[in-house]
Amino acid sequence: MRQAGRYLPEYRELRARALSFLEFCYSPQLAVEATLQPIRRFGFDAAILFSDILVVPDALGQKVAFESGEGPRLDPVADAQALARLGDEPNWNRLSPVFETLDRLKPALPRDVALIGFCGAPFTVASYMVAGRGTPDQGPARLLAYREPKLFAALIDRLVEASAEYLARQIAAGAEAVQIFDSWAGVLPPPEFARWCVTPIAALVAKLRAKAPHAPVIVFPRGAGTQLTQFAGLPEVAAIGLDTATDPRAAAVALPDRVALQGNLDPLALVAGGAALDEAIARVLSGFDGRAHIFNLGHGVLPQTPVAHVEQLMKRVRA
Amino acid sequence: MRQAGRYLPEYRELRARALSFLEFCYSPQLAVEATLQPIRRFGFDAAILFSDILVVPDALGQKVAFESGEGPRLDPVADAQALARLGDEPNWNRLSPVFETLDRLKPALPRDVALIGFCGAPFTVASYMVAGRGTPDQGPARLLAYREPKLFAALIDRLVEASAEYLARQIAAGAEAVQIFDSWAGVLPPPEFARWCVTPIAALVAKLRAKAPHAPVIVFPRGAGTQLTQFAGLPEVAAIGLDTATDPRAAAVALPDRVALQGNLDPLALVAGGAALDEAIARVLSGFDGRAHIFNLGHGVLPQTPVAHVEQLMKRVRA
Repeated sequence: MRQAGRYLPEYRELRARALSFLEFCYSPQLAVEATLQPIRRFGFDAAILFSDILVVPDALGQKVAFESGEGPRLDPVADAQALARLGDEPNWNRLSPVFETLDRLKPALPRDVALIGFCGAPFTVASYMVAGRGTPDQGPARLLAYREPKLFAALIDRLVEASAEYLARQIAAGAEAVQIFDSWAGVLPPPEFARWCVTPIAALVAKLRAKAPHAPVIVFPRGAGTQLTQFAGLPEVAAIGLDTATDPRAAAVALPDRVALQGNLDPLALVAGGAALDEAIARVLSGFDGRAHIFNLGHGVLPQTPVAHVEQLMKRVRA
Repeated sequence: MRQAGRYLPEYRELRARALSFLEFCYSPQLAVEATLQPIRRFGFDAAILFSDILVVPDALGQKVAFESGEGPRLDPVADAQALARLGDEPNWNRLSPVFETLDRLKPALPRDVALIGFCGAPFTVASYMVAGRGTPDQGPARLLAYREPKLFAALIDRLVEASAEYLARQIAAGAEAVQIFDSWAGVLPPPEFARWCVTPIAALVAKLRAKAPHAPVIVFPRGAGTQLTQFAGLPEVAAIGLDTATDPRAAAVALPDRVALQGNLDPLALVAGGAALDEAIARVLSGFDGRAHIFNLGHGVLPQTPVAHVEQLMKRVRA
């Protein structure tokens, strides 16, 4: 999960130096610093590139902006004409600051800290591209997928190609592992989950493998619930990230032993701190006992999280 | 799921006659008419009382209002003082229009149409009571549960008692089955899901059984996902409602045969209509094949749903 953020005073200071959030992501100097801040403060085992999943639509030529406190706003891609106006592939010059950020991070990180790159999964990115914003249920994208499945498939295919090449270039620039965030897959019924979440991710990973055979791939299908089993057949996925509501033991049954499990501390337990946090940490550690496990939150760090609680977390997990 | 709503022109006409949404719920004449409208138009097998889950906090003395297009607004109950100001039990006079609505509905409905009463589950109602509004993650209630578990448990206990008596009175007034909506249970990690969703519902149903031994109880734990198995041990629950993202076959494994399964057509497929709707209906019917099944949506009817698509649905399912 994103480690930097508003819960860190040094992040808020840094954020104030950029005019827009995209400018922040595209400034190697600021993005390197944002990536390093939580590593310096907490000494995590891995650093995750500071960026955003919507740089891909931006590089495909869609207008993307972040309204302060309002989330992203995009010119919606909701018909064939709008899709045709997008580039066949991203403008790689537009994304070059991301690769430069990774290139600069490599020597700046302690040798034993892994560097993780990432992108959004095709369905999640498409859901923002179609709706033009975040929505509670990804209704606009799902409705388009029902009404015009060929058009929606063309958008998904474009994102599969772009994301595979994007991750390959991140790896070439220094990322040692990559994570694919399908933050909104959980709204999809089983056949749509297979068609728009699992199949595109499988295609993306296969294409990535042809370009970059070795870097481990982590997939985060938030809200997959009973549909987690659909990921059991993806041999190229090294780890699956689990959201907070997923029962670790059910995930261990649903996914073969070769898949490491990542997660899934409740970010609100991290806000609460105290005994509630200690109990939640103990439950995550025992829940994944006997399984290859990457300790992580089940979703992002919340802005109101006290820094002292993250320190408490690190101390407990390290012990 | 609520069958009446803005997708029906006759509902919009009716809604315009009441000043506020609560006044609408508390007017037997209007609530009877809203309950009957979809039965007249579509001939469903069962009618669900037109009301709202927040009448319980309202009857407990919390200030509840519905802002037009904004959802509910309540004076938050976030500390012991606010909890102490609530009644020990609901003001039953305040809720008497609900019972009168049920009483009037019984003779107004065709004899072969069942009448379903309902309430919100303790966790979902508490999440609105604590936050004072809908939130994406029920953060305020969950945070209170972590920080002050005794206070949150006291609120949950109050709601268990009130809801059991409320449902018993609905049954006495004519409801032939009751449904308990835990619309926000899906955000809870496993131990919290057991503590704040499953255990309070089990207590509610046990108390209800003592007062009304026979009416079937349906529970809708939206987003339960891999945690559905936690409902396997509730012998008094006749049916479990499943959300759209739940795999019917996984639910059939998670829950014993004595539990009927209800659901779970994607409301967006109903908006889309055409071949997408026909396919979605066929998948629901085949997915629950071999199991006691109540055909339903996986969530409420969306306002933009064309009436003709509901007619298409009824024709296919009846056939």
